[in-house]
Amino acid sequence: MSKEQTIHREKLSGVFAPITTPFDENGEISFQGLEENIKKLNSSRLRGYLVLGTNGEFKSLSESERRKVLETVIKVSGKDKVVMAGTGRESTKESIAATKEAASIGTHFASLIAPSFFAKKMTDPVLLNHFRVIADASSIPVLLYNNPEVVVVTYSTGLIGEVSKHPNIVGMKDTSKGNFASYLLAAGPDFNLLAGSAAFFLEALVMGGVGGVLSIANFAPEACCKVYDLWKAGKLEEARKEQYKLMTLNQKVSGKFGVAGVKAAMDFAGFYGGSPRAPLLSLTADEKKKLKEDLLNSGFLKK
Amino acid sequence: MSKEQTIHREKLSGVFAPITTPFDENGEISFQGLEENIKKLNSSRLRGYLVLGTNGEFKSLSESERRKVLETVIKVSGKDKVVMAGTGRESTKESIAATKEAASIGTHFASLIAPSFFAKKMTDPVLLNHFRVIADASSIPVLLYNNPEVVVVTYSTGLIGEVSKHPNIVGMKDTSKGNFASYLLAAGPDFNLLAGSAAFFLEALVMGGVGGVLSIANFAPEACCKVYDLWKAGKLEEARKEQYKLMTLNQKVSGKFGVAGVKAAMDFAGFYGGSPRAPLLSLTADEKKKLKEDLLNSGFLKK
Amino acid sequence: MSKEQTIHREKLSGVFAPITTPFDENGEISFQGLEENIKKLNSSRLRGYLVLGTNGEFKSLSESERRKVLETVIKVSGKDKVVMAGTGRESTKESIAATKEAASIGTHFASLIAPSFFAKKMTDPVLLNHFRVIADASSIPVLLYNNPEVVVVTYSTGLIGEVSKHPNIVGMKDTSKGNFASYLLAAGPDFNLLAGSAAFFLEALVMGGVGGVLSIANFAPEACCKVYDLWKAGKLEEARKEQYKLMTLNQKVSGKFGVAGVKAAMDFAGFYGGSPRAPLLSLTADEKKKLKEDLLNSGFLKK
Amino acid sequence: MSKEQTIHREKLSGVFAPITTPFDENGEISFQGLEENIKKLNSSRLRGYLVLGTNGEFKSLSESERRKVLETVIKVSGKDKVVMAGTGRESTKESIAATKEAASIGTHFASLIAPSFFAKKMTDPVLLNHFRVIADASSIPVLLYNNPEVVVVTYSTGLIGEVSKHPNIVGMKDTSKGNFASYLLAAGPDFNLLAGSAAFFLEALVMGGVGGVLSIANFAPEACCKVYDLWKAGKLEEARKEQYKLMTLNQKVSGKFGVAGVKAAMDFAGFYGGSPRAPLLSLTADEKKKLKEDLLNSGFLKK
Repeated sequence: MSKEQTIHREKLSGVFAPITTPFDENGEISFQGLEENIKKLNSSRLRGYLVLGTNGEFKSLSESERRKVLETVIKVSGKDKVVMAGTGRESTKESIAATKEAASIGTHFASLIAPSFFAKKMTDPVLLNHFRVIADASSIPVLLYNNPEVVVVTYSTGLIGEVSKHPNIVGMKDTSKGNFASYLLAAGPDFNLLAGSAAFFLEALVMGGVGGVLSIANFAPEACCKVYDLWKAGKLEEARKEQYKLMTLNQKVSGKFGVAGVKAAMDFAGFYGGSPRAPLLSLTADEKKKLKEDLLNSGFLKK
Repeated sequence: MSKEQTIHREKLSGVFAPITTPFDENGEISFQGLEENIKKLNSSRLRGYLVLGTNGEFKSLSESERRKVLETVIKVSGKDKVVMAGTGRESTKESIAATKEAASIGTHFASLIAPSFFAKKMTDPVLLNHFRVIADASSIPVLLYNNPEVVVVTYSTGLIGEVSKHPNIVGMKDTSKGNFASYLLAAGPDFNLLAGSAAFFLEALVMGGVGGVLSIANFAPEACCKVYDLWKAGKLEEARKEQYKLMTLNQKVSGKFGVAGVKAAMDFAGFYGGSPRAPLLSLTADEKKKLKEDLLNSGFLKK
Repeated sequence: MSKEQTIHREKLSGVFAPITTPFDENGEISFQGLEENIKKLNSSRLRGYLVLGTNGEFKSLSESERRKVLETVIKVSGKDKVVMAGTGRESTKESIAATKEAASIGTHFASLIAPSFFAKKMTDPVLLNHFRVIADASSIPVLLYNNPEVVVVTYSTGLIGEVSKHPNIVGMKDTSKGNFASYLLAAGPDFNLLAGSAAFFLEALVMGGVGGVLSIANFAPEACCKVYDLWKAGKLEEARKEQYKLMTLNQKVSGKFGVAGVKAAMDFAGFYGGSPRAPLLSLTADEKKKLKEDLLNSGFLKK
Repeated sequence: MSKEQTIHREKLSGVFAPITTPFDENGEISFQGLEENIKKLNSSRLRGYLVLGTNGEFKSLSESERRKVLETVIKVSGKDKVVMAGTGRESTKESIAATKEAASIGTHFASLIAPSFFAKKMTDPVLLNHFRVIADASSIPVLLYNNPEVVVVTYSTGLIGEVSKHPNIVGMKDTSKGNFASYLLAAGPDFNLLAGSAAFFLEALVMGGVGGVLSIANFAPEACCKVYDLWKAGKLEEARKEQYKLMTLNQKVSGKFGVAGVKAAMDFAGFYGGSPRAPLLSLTADEKKKLKEDLLNSGFLKK
């Protein structure tokens, strides 16, 4: 590993929270709420934040809103925290513009989701060209983001093998099911692969992943860091126990309800959760009640 | 049918071209090319234009580009032509804003594609609420746009049955496979349903559809209008023959190559086609040569 | 068309019922029930029967049961009726054996569903080879059966174009959504294409299909024949009205409940319906009550 | 754990080979080839065999062939080896009959694949009823088999939670992608879960799985056992290295070519591989040459 690679690895190792975007009663972004959330998370052992990702509802924000959200997070983010930002757009042109803007604001890593509107045309050569051109144009290192649930496209292992050779594409957040080790095998161990879901965080670490971007880290950062720390300390048996607790939590919140569930749990845990932006709906009163019970029973919330 | 409904029906009956957005060598929009294309199409028997749809690569345009494209089309569009514009966005809020803007420019109908980033959450109640809120806020009548290939979501017949009761949701462009008659059955005969693909244009008309939004109308408007006119004249046997020709053309262009194919064929036919915006790629030289041969052999292009 | 082709066309033109297999209270086949059903249907204007298809639950029968079911139908089938039998199996070897057996019993046409257990390996060359070898070995003409809902595999238009050149593959029953006209375009007008669902029966006829194999013909043969006859008589407007009635009926029975629904409706209509074989379950008492109401309200059942 | 449960666990812990069915040049089963394969594998550290599974092409065999294959394996199987047999059929009735027959022959565990022809009707209650009825009727313990690639159906975690409460359903072979830990969480640690693919064998063990049924164990039993043994010995780092070798091997053989690839590799490794039964095709000469090179380069085959 080169010195630069070692620095990237260090920055990407650990747990990241994919920051939600808080909205007020009128559906406008609450920047104050966002600031408060980040300040609270600053005191956790989280390695950093992913801004403008799926949980950030970035597709429901205008470009100017996206910029302000990112500026806000960078402004209040702790000095020890690493900030990634989602800068993938449907066109290569706009992806480059968003990546450059994020870099100019002080983002550490750009995270590129696949264009998906023309999913059938997103063949390996098309995606390879798209990512290369952006990475060439970017002054900050680039990560791919693989999430077939929201963009249909699943990266092939061949694509990841090719992409990993680019000096400015330094890793990937993988949210797909059951492909993590295959990507590592294709890309080689120097590629920084992060689990994009708590559902397989420990397996990812065991196979050579460097960390995770976990939606439940928005409200349960310590539970996530615990799995990571136990793994690092070689305590596999205990790590597994905590991993199963994490999975249970994840299923009841993100798995069942998505962003709206994460926001409801944030409200319970003292963060500013609030409602997602329409068309996404908040949990109903009954769903919230049930979720609260689940969180109390699982020992995550204290009475 | 009310008087208003009769007016809508008249405006929506016939063939529409889903206008492509021409780009110059630098990847910037060629507004001159766009004007020329519309002026040429003005002299055809097309009923009108759909701007900012899938073939318009609207997801690859910025909001300000979208506005300018729409303004340009409306400026040069023939007085007898009807203009629809794609105004669906990922959030309800932005969809309303885009719809209002389109109305203020002079668009006749807004066309709403489904939000799809959170496709799994796009249940019938969520979509119903989304479309109703936009239709309530819109001063111009609204059409839905159903295209599972680009947005994953397929509207249920139950949703269409409900949506069709809204006085300001007056029809739908259906590009899905094999659902057209089911939607008409669910919505009733006063709902204006248009075929979103040449692949089933005649079947759609036979079952009660009022027209079609056909990608190949961008370069072959007369071939499309011929099917419509023969059907209207009660000449079913001849209409079928022409429909099969249309299908052949459609398969070789849109079916095989998508927007890039439509643009290549436009170049052959004397329109400004040009390249799609990256990540979409132009046809290779070999593909263009083969396409030209296909168009010559099918009798569509004259030597 | 050759003389032989003309004979095939005549035999395949019209409405076929995909015969259900009746079971008694112990889950054993009721051959008496089967005989009675066929005798009743003999007096209808149906062109014939498809035995051992999806509605016949052929995958839930042993090979010896399949033989007996086919023998029974052929024994009591009216002289004017045409009998097709499902003889596709997972291996080419067993498909050939089943086809030969069916021929030896007196079946007129063999219907070949695709092998699907190794669906990912069922490429065009593999399927082409499979169907050719069977057709070569068969003394009776062969039809393909295309039903992606039960076998995952959807035939490509390229495959159908190739297959249609084989002198002993004379047509196809297509149950897939939205591909009918494409198959006809690929195979040419001499290929005998039958709609495999009432959902698009009229469209299929309009585009050049010769008939339909319609599950609801098991209990509503006349309603199905009415659409066919009106179409043949050139009464398109009336045919469309009847087609929409047929679609409504089909949605409430087959669409909603599958084979179990068809069997319940058969019971209401005076046929021997009974229960499907486990794991399929009968309709619950509530579902039956609701179905009966639906059939009464639609005017299909008389009080 | 009860005494009986402890015995089951012991029998199911380790690596199993899903035995292929060898065919001679005429496409008939070579029972001599099968005997020789089993005798060779008897000397390996494999825990046992799964007969009549996906790799056994059981769907391409007649019922009488299935019986003979199972009898042959049981006859020559080593005394220390555990034999599972695939006894799931499309109907509950035939699944019970096959399970009873397998038990009467001396099979230790029955393996039940889901019925899939009516996949859309295979809801949780339907599957729960199906599996319970078979398990009730079976004198030998039953395992489920989860393989969405061949049967479309993916078991829900809710179903597995319920099924695991049945005293005679003692485990599952899971070939699905990315669900293994979720199933263990739903079923509890006493449920015997086996990885159904080498692609995630080590992750499965780490999360609490007891073993694996691995197609490549047909020709590389020691490579598979090595991962298992290293894991058991607490040598995680070394186990991971071997797991990645296993994955590479698996991708080049099963992943790329399926059963035909496994059989070709068996031929290279001194077993009786031969051709799959049509419609499956053998590897072409070029594919075989390439595969041989891959196996030599990976160090698996010695020159």
